[in-house]
Amino acid sequence: MRIDIITCLPKLLESPFSHSILKRAQDKGLVEVHVHDLRQYSTNKHRTVDDYAYGGGAGMVLMIEPVSACIDALKQERDYDEIIYMSPDGQLFTQNVANELSIKTNLMILCGHYKGVDERVREHYITREISIGDYVLSGGELAAAVVSDAVIRLLPGVISDETSALTDSFQDGLVAPPVYTRPAEFKGWKVPDVLLSGNEKKIEEWRFQEAVARTKERRPNLLNDSAENS
Amino acid sequence: MRIDIITCLPKLLESPFSHSILKRAQDKGLVEVHVHDLRQYSTNKHRTVDDYAYGGGAGMVLMIEPVSACIDALKQERDYDEIIYMSPDGQLFTQNVANELSIKTNLMILCGHYKGVDERVREHYITREISIGDYVLSGGELAAAVVSDAVIRLLPGVISDETSALTDSFQDGLVAPPVYTRPAEFKGWKVPDVLLSGNEKKIEEWRFQEAVARTKERRPNLLNDSAENS
Repeated sequence: MRIDIITCLPKLLESPFSHSILKRAQDKGLVEVHVHDLRQYSTNKHRTVDDYAYGGGAGMVLMIEPVSACIDALKQERDYDEIIYMSPDGQLFTQNVANELSIKTNLMILCGHYKGVDERVREHYITREISIGDYVLSGGELAAAVVSDAVIRLLPGVISDETSALTDSFQDGLVAPPVYTRPAEFKGWKVPDVLLSGNEKKIEEWRFQEAVARTKERRPNLLNDSAENS
Repeated sequence: MRIDIITCLPKLLESPFSHSILKRAQDKGLVEVHVHDLRQYSTNKHRTVDDYAYGGGAGMVLMIEPVSACIDALKQERDYDEIIYMSPDGQLFTQNVANELSIKTNLMILCGHYKGVDERVREHYITREISIGDYVLSGGELAAAVVSDAVIRLLPGVISDETSALTDSFQDGLVAPPVYTRPAEFKGWKVPDVLLSGNEKKIEEWRFQEAVARTKERRPNLLNDSAENS
């Protein structure tokens, strides 16, 4: 997989892709992540990439010219499965969307900034708009990093023990059950006996019951969704 | 406002807080962000902070001892309004939650990693669990950065033109209308005439209609929510 991220703040994305599993995935050759500086594609001498909104009002808007130049340059080099724009009013990102994107080959992600991007970019270049949630960020950079992280960790070989991703929250329509590790007692707070019992069957039952109970309490919509789909 | 973030990957968070508005907000003294390395609070000689889950299964779990030591040390220095744990099964983060957190004084955010944190931490230390969406990340670090960004940009003085944040998506129960900037025509694609008309009243009407239409199409739940609340 290859992910190209277009941003006016490339430095903001340096550390998230330089540590932990995102770094390991790149080191192993399982994914290439390229961050492109929109200012390199600016068509004016001041290298500006944003301007005031037509019609007035507060906040700056990313201009179509540098975005168009950058997307065109990348599209000349390879075909993209999706050209994604990160936007609060895009399709809500879910684990299903992450699963779907994880089987693509080439993804391009455009990060908005300030008030967003000229609407003509969305109309003519973007194939998919994604929102990581119903809240506003100062730019699309962190959102692009979130989508990349959620997708990359699903690529075969990225997480060392693959069963780990399969037992994540949401993958079976349930949130994950509680987890505990050593010590068995801390300040008088004890790990549930069943987890120390060595009885695999009972442990699995307990985990399933806890996952169902927690899902009912915290994400009842997941249970309704799976009932509707079955 | 002060935000303390506890993580086993402090370097991952370096660049998001060193650029753009998160940096400017700190430079202006409007917010202090302190990232704490969980390994500094490890109680063993290898400085490990995670261990296998009781009961078996794939994935590592953050241990209670270093987390407890770090939280206790911070709590001795000041009172915290919330000790937040980033978790996929937490309360869904929304603009309303961001607004609510933006009036707090001291926030602590614990980032999970791998399979999460020992459940006893959640029971005995955490006052609030937040999820940025129904998907799984390799750790809570990016989620903590997302929450910090959404909250910090709301602090008075952080965004230079304060009306900018008030016209964001969600703040009025609508997603934002389309925005355009120069040039007025690009590859034959034109900016809507009304935005070039100079007629402020018509521009406001157009924006409101576009915002309502886009909300109906993309986030109908926002309209239902506001109808229920009115």
